[in-house]
Amino acid sequence: MRKLASVSEIRSFLRPHRQAGRRIGFVPTMGALHEGHRSLVRRARAECQVVVVSIFVNPTQFGPNEDYAAYPRPLDADLALCREDGVDAAFCPPVEEMYAPDSATTVTVSRLTDGLCGAHRPGHFAGVTTVVAKLFNIVQPDVAYFGQKDAQQAVVIRRMVRDLCWPIEIVGCPTVRESDGLALASRNAYLSPAERQQALCLSAALNWACERIAAGERAVPALIEGMKRRIVDAGPCSIDYVEIVDADELTPKPRVEGRCLIATAVRIGKTRLIDNRVVDADRLAR
Amino acid sequence: MRKLASVSEIRSFLRPHRQAGRRIGFVPTMGALHEGHRSLVRRARAECQVVVVSIFVNPTQFGPNEDYAAYPRPLDADLALCREDGVDAAFCPPVEEMYAPDSATTVTVSRLTDGLCGAHRPGHFAGVTTVVAKLFNIVQPDVAYFGQKDAQQAVVIRRMVRDLCWPIEIVGCPTVRESDGLALASRNAYLSPAERQQALCLSAALNWACERIAAGERAVPALIEGMKRRIVDAGPCSIDYVEIVDADELTPKPRVEGRCLIATAVRIGKTRLIDNRVVDADRLAR
Repeated sequence: MRKLASVSEIRSFLRPHRQAGRRIGFVPTMGALHEGHRSLVRRARAECQVVVVSIFVNPTQFGPNEDYAAYPRPLDADLALCREDGVDAAFCPPVEEMYAPDSATTVTVSRLTDGLCGAHRPGHFAGVTTVVAKLFNIVQPDVAYFGQKDAQQAVVIRRMVRDLCWPIEIVGCPTVRESDGLALASRNAYLSPAERQQALCLSAALNWACERIAAGERAVPALIEGMKRRIVDAGPCSIDYVEIVDADELTPKPRVEGRCLIATAVRIGKTRLIDNRVVDADRLAR
Repeated sequence: MRKLASVSEIRSFLRPHRQAGRRIGFVPTMGALHEGHRSLVRRARAECQVVVVSIFVNPTQFGPNEDYAAYPRPLDADLALCREDGVDAAFCPPVEEMYAPDSATTVTVSRLTDGLCGAHRPGHFAGVTTVVAKLFNIVQPDVAYFGQKDAQQAVVIRRMVRDLCWPIEIVGCPTVRESDGLALASRNAYLSPAERQQALCLSAALNWACERIAAGERAVPALIEGMKRRIVDAGPCSIDYVEIVDADELTPKPRVEGRCLIATAVRIGKTRLIDNRVVDADRLAR
């Protein structure tokens, strides 16, 4: 596996592969790789002839009071995992390789970024779409893999790619969970043992909602109320949101109909956790 | 020459050329082609193995009170010129091929778009950068050609390409002028014979400024004052701006030093005309 830090190096590395017509798969990450990332890498490995992983903690997607400085950067361990999973090239640029001092260009996606995490992290999605646009132009993959754990991000990236006509297929991959249900996330490393236990409230609340929906409940207010109660009952926390929205348009749903995204973001201690489930009400028994 | 209207058609047309490693040159236009456009096409023809021209009157770069509906669309004549100049493919998409009803993505370049035409045409450059981003991803050229007549546009596109890391070379080509100095522009067709005569005030004012600078004048206020007087003296008009700015950063210059862009926009009757000159004060005698 090659570890490459500059745009010109990754371009040179990929040129012969592209010329040979090989399918290039791309997994953009911020490092601190876990089994969630690895599921994306393994899927890319199974579907593509060349697999590129980027490891870049993107400053522009962090708010001024967020955890950019503290975000874990276990680069050697990340590279070992990439090697183990058969990655061909890890692109690990320094910040100055990605952002010139006089950078002036931003890619924004409207509407889809107004709610959910977008409402609580101003500027976050503009940072994400801008850096992903850069990475797409650097790597020029045939296919890129994103985790469903970041459900809003996946919807936003998919729309950006469609709107700006990138010839890139976007593949969403299922959330990977611990055996007790906690969605894998690099930020789980911030949790104390007690917080780790409390954090199960997110997946538990989502499970409860899915069960209620399967049992016939369609009233969104009752479902949100029940999820919030379950989260609050688990211990002291601050709920950013618990919402049920259209899975593609991310617009609020008054009733559970069609494909719905049930999504929540909760702060436990200093750690902000997100989780979600997609349910297709039309494909349930009633 | 192929005339292609859909993204999938132009992609299919270009695929074998790209696979064969041929250099693809791209000239994005809004049609109503004149010798200015043709100079870009001929340069592309001389430098590339495949030449693509797009003809698309982009609605998002027109303001609500601008001339989108009236903008000339002589498609058959345009295609004949493309054929004559050896264009391989003319990409002429309908609006709905370029903009889905739920389009949500915008590419913006800050700072460089604040002044000059950006100050007088709110949203114009966001429209330009967004459609050019789409076209770049559709055509995926090796090199794209832009006219220096739209000086701010060329600077903005260049910065966008650098910032978002497109592997595309941007070539700026000199303004083509009528024998009496009028810069060629599709909108010149709007001018009455009297307005056509009056319109010479733009190039005349710029010429005067260049002569004064060559003679040693370095004070920007005196130059702007003199240019405005010459424009106003030519007849009734409305001056959008007369400015001298840094040619790369587009920031106002108190004195003429280094590479300067001298730019003006003037409304004569219903027609908005722009023109500019670049002078390198460091390369003048004094």
